[in-house]
Amino acid sequence: MSTPMQERAVAWHGNGTNGARAERSGIAVHRLEIETTKRVEIRDLTALVQEIVRATGVAAGLVTLSTMHTTTAVFVNEPQSALLEDVEQLLERLAPRDEDWKHNDPRYSDCDRQNADAHLRAIMLGSSVTLQVAEGALTMGQWQRVLMAELDGPRTRQLVLQILAAA
Amino acid sequence: MSTPMQERAVAWHGNGTNGARAERSGIAVHRLEIETTKRVEIRDLTALVQEIVRATGVAAGLVTLSTMHTTTAVFVNEPQSALLEDVEQLLERLAPRDEDWKHNDPRYSDCDRQNADAHLRAIMLGSSVTLQVAEGALTMGQWQRVLMAELDGPRTRQLVLQILAAA
Amino acid sequence: MSTPMQERAVAWHGNGTNGARAERSGIAVHRLEIETTKRVEIRDLTALVQEIVRATGVAAGLVTLSTMHTTTAVFVNEPQSALLEDVEQLLERLAPRDEDWKHNDPRYSDCDRQNADAHLRAIMLGSSVTLQVAEGALTMGQWQRVLMAELDGPRTRQLVLQILAAA
Repeated sequence: MSTPMQERAVAWHGNGTNGARAERSGIAVHRLEIETTKRVEIRDLTALVQEIVRATGVAAGLVTLSTMHTTTAVFVNEPQSALLEDVEQLLERLAPRDEDWKHNDPRYSDCDRQNADAHLRAIMLGSSVTLQVAEGALTMGQWQRVLMAELDGPRTRQLVLQILAAA
Repeated sequence: MSTPMQERAVAWHGNGTNGARAERSGIAVHRLEIETTKRVEIRDLTALVQEIVRATGVAAGLVTLSTMHTTTAVFVNEPQSALLEDVEQLLERLAPRDEDWKHNDPRYSDCDRQNADAHLRAIMLGSSVTLQVAEGALTMGQWQRVLMAELDGPRTRQLVLQILAAA
Repeated sequence: MSTPMQERAVAWHGNGTNGARAERSGIAVHRLEIETTKRVEIRDLTALVQEIVRATGVAAGLVTLSTMHTTTAVFVNEPQSALLEDVEQLLERLAPRDEDWKHNDPRYSDCDRQNADAHLRAIMLGSSVTLQVAEGALTMGQWQRVLMAELDGPRTRQLVLQILAAA
């Protein structure tokens, strides 16, 4: 009763029983919890993301990693320790902690964390990254890593990783 | 005539007639028109985006919200009014309106809007955001909102929201 | 033996044999190689991306364009030549080349390219863009273009373009 077209549909949805043509489709979501240790800190999440992608068995698709906070950020670059100090120096240069921000001023704000700089730095760095998956692994360059910036820690932070699998 | 595999394929494509297992797959596109009221203004679009996602009936997938302009931006953070003033202050600090930008100089540019600062600020903030959808709603943290920055208004602005549904 | 539901499933997966309802689903990946000619240079990749999207025959979906380097960036804005000079001026203002960055200091770093500014500028601009596809073309505004920033050239640069097609 199976026509060639139905065969293709089945193969497209195959989940491992179909040999080399089988690929997993659909979506997977993982919630990550990261304990940070300093007020400002950049963490390399690449190995963790890569491991989740592999465990999911997705051949190709998109990974979206989103922070759930307004004073953390995610971005892609190289986590060389001297460079990460430069990134912190850049953030202090662009959005200094001790500027007269209104978010830190009780006359204008009910926020008692005095963390305007953290919000502003998060906005500049971005709240999510979109990564490609091909042949079951992240498509990234030799020096590229997925980095999370803690900008108002130390705290326990939540990120959500979605894997959207293609046929 | 239906095999277990065909059952799965049908469920994957179900459009509501299949009960609890049915989920909508495919794509939906909505064009948003926002009337801004000031030269620089940050607007919270979260409720609008959330409502469109719900109306579409998508269970899980990706939302891409893209501005169609080079002097507006979209990003994610907290729309506390004091903080939004700080964001405007940050943008003026990083890309001041009255700097000697070439884009504003008739010797180099035919643009008569004198809006170099608006382009530069838009580049720093970003032209689109990617949001996750799970269980029919945006996956966002407690304080996170989808924000649009008008940087050279007031004008009527177009944004396009795409919902890519997964199985 | 074909039910209405199976008909829909087949149409969803159609690859051109099904007339007007047929749309291509799945994923396509293209690796782009760009030869840059200066240390800092902004290139318009829109025509190239648009052509690849058209050649793929995808009706609707998402395009992700990711650089494979930590000293290049991709973003969306208008490539007017005076404005591009302003962007370079902005980057020099925010992350000056001759600042005392630790990444450039042999006491802290084994990097001999002295390119801290390039990394920092890349972080501010972003490593990938997500573009919508509708009716076989990129969904972009009148003045919007997909731009690549070379920040430590001239070099041969790799970018990877993924097209994720929806039904």
